[in-house]
Amino acid sequence: MTLTRREVLGAVGIAAGSCALSSCAMEGMGSFQDGTPKPVFPWRYAELDPDITAQRAYSNYKKGYCMYATFKSVTSQLADKYGEPYRSFPVNMMIYGAGGVAGWGSLCGAVNGSAALVGLFVKKEDEIKQLVDELFLWYQQTELPVYVPQKPALNIEIARSVSSSVLCHVSCTRWCKVSGHKTFTNPQKERCKRLSADTAKKTVEILNAHFASRFSAALQHDEKTRQCMPCHTKGSKLQNTRGKMECNSCHSSLADEHMNKGNEQSV
Amino acid sequence: MTLTRREVLGAVGIAAGSCALSSCAMEGMGSFQDGTPKPVFPWRYAELDPDITAQRAYSNYKKGYCMYATFKSVTSQLADKYGEPYRSFPVNMMIYGAGGVAGWGSLCGAVNGSAALVGLFVKKEDEIKQLVDELFLWYQQTELPVYVPQKPALNIEIARSVSSSVLCHVSCTRWCKVSGHKTFTNPQKERCKRLSADTAKKTVEILNAHFASRFSAALQHDEKTRQCMPCHTKGSKLQNTRGKMECNSCHSSLADEHMNKGNEQSV
Repeated sequence: MTLTRREVLGAVGIAAGSCALSSCAMEGMGSFQDGTPKPVFPWRYAELDPDITAQRAYSNYKKGYCMYATFKSVTSQLADKYGEPYRSFPVNMMIYGAGGVAGWGSLCGAVNGSAALVGLFVKKEDEIKQLVDELFLWYQQTELPVYVPQKPALNIEIARSVSSSVLCHVSCTRWCKVSGHKTFTNPQKERCKRLSADTAKKTVEILNAHFASRFSAALQHDEKTRQCMPCHTKGSKLQNTRGKMECNSCHSSLADEHMNKGNEQSV
Repeated sequence: MTLTRREVLGAVGIAAGSCALSSCAMEGMGSFQDGTPKPVFPWRYAELDPDITAQRAYSNYKKGYCMYATFKSVTSQLADKYGEPYRSFPVNMMIYGAGGVAGWGSLCGAVNGSAALVGLFVKKEDEIKQLVDELFLWYQQTELPVYVPQKPALNIEIARSVSSSVLCHVSCTRWCKVSGHKTFTNPQKERCKRLSADTAKKTVEILNAHFASRFSAALQHDEKTRQCMPCHTKGSKLQNTRGKMECNSCHSSLADEHMNKGNEQSV
């Protein structure tokens, strides 16, 4: 692939004025370190095909699992298109996110990798929050997985479930209940592969919309969570929690009286 | 800083045979893309001072919060020492992890950033798990924060609490209960700053030990969690969960009968 100087500079966001690449030679690594232009942050995003992204994520999973799958599905396409700096990003590090980080069942790796992509391409904190909110609400509320690969690694019908949580532990257990399969089995892995494809696709749809200035939030918290927030979150009377996960997902044993009490108090 | 060719090659893990840096000039970006040596994965770690790391994490927090704080506390030291490729890592992306990822209260950003460091420097999956297990168990079980900055941003005594969870939501709420402070307040932010310093320090202690071949796991799961695992996790009869978080942290309403029933059944 041959690119003009303008295309390359635009792609990697290099400020031409600070560029001293022509002086970098192995004999002068001092100048390589000090003179090589550091890619401007945030890295530049380019509109991607959501379906191709899903296919890549599905395929990536076998090498590095969920977080690696979603993260690389996007950066690999930009590396194919532009080369650096995408080509040199150490994507293998994202293997750490597998199974809710090293098997801990905390944050689902598919959304951890997708949120990391948002962080790579979007600088403003309020915009990061808007895009991640939409992605995480979609993940919590949607029957997944939807993606069906053309050449499935495991050719069976995969049941769909609503996770009601962005946590791997909850998401997997709920799917096991619906599907009748156990964790750590091939059907569960196939489910997580397809879920990674869905999540990568959704991420690219959100990023495409954002960078085309046509993103608008479509989803909101479930009704129960909206009942909890006025008493517990920022700006409330108690203000004793942080977070936007579905409250009922863990606090399911709270009696209706607790809710009613809160509602009465807030009147 | 002047480095010999050997030092630089060693530091960034470049295979000398594949290096064509001397041919990279702005006019020939094709050769920049195709010829520039891609850093070998995993990136090379060098022993770091845990206390300096803690100071850096504490200081970093004000720019990018918890995940950024721990991640950059290590990569910035290696960038100071070696330059590339550490210098060009887009550390600002790690802002996404703030408040359990964009304020969602899921995985604590301090441990998310630290686990990402483990993923950057350690290739073998079983070793990643060993090191992250130790870090996450320490985070769950230790009264934190311990770190007291020389020049605190907020000069008050910060109470210590045991999180019993790697989740931001739980960790913050438990600290609020112990300290009497609310979330989203300056004392809570000061607590999270110091917690980030502690977590970065612990991460470097673990990485230093690992790369000096003297790491051995010192911690284990709490007793209640160890009671749950034989029925629910990999290799068990039910095998219906994934994860290593403290079970009781969310499943606190499970009666003792549930435990006893499980123990009887497994006999």
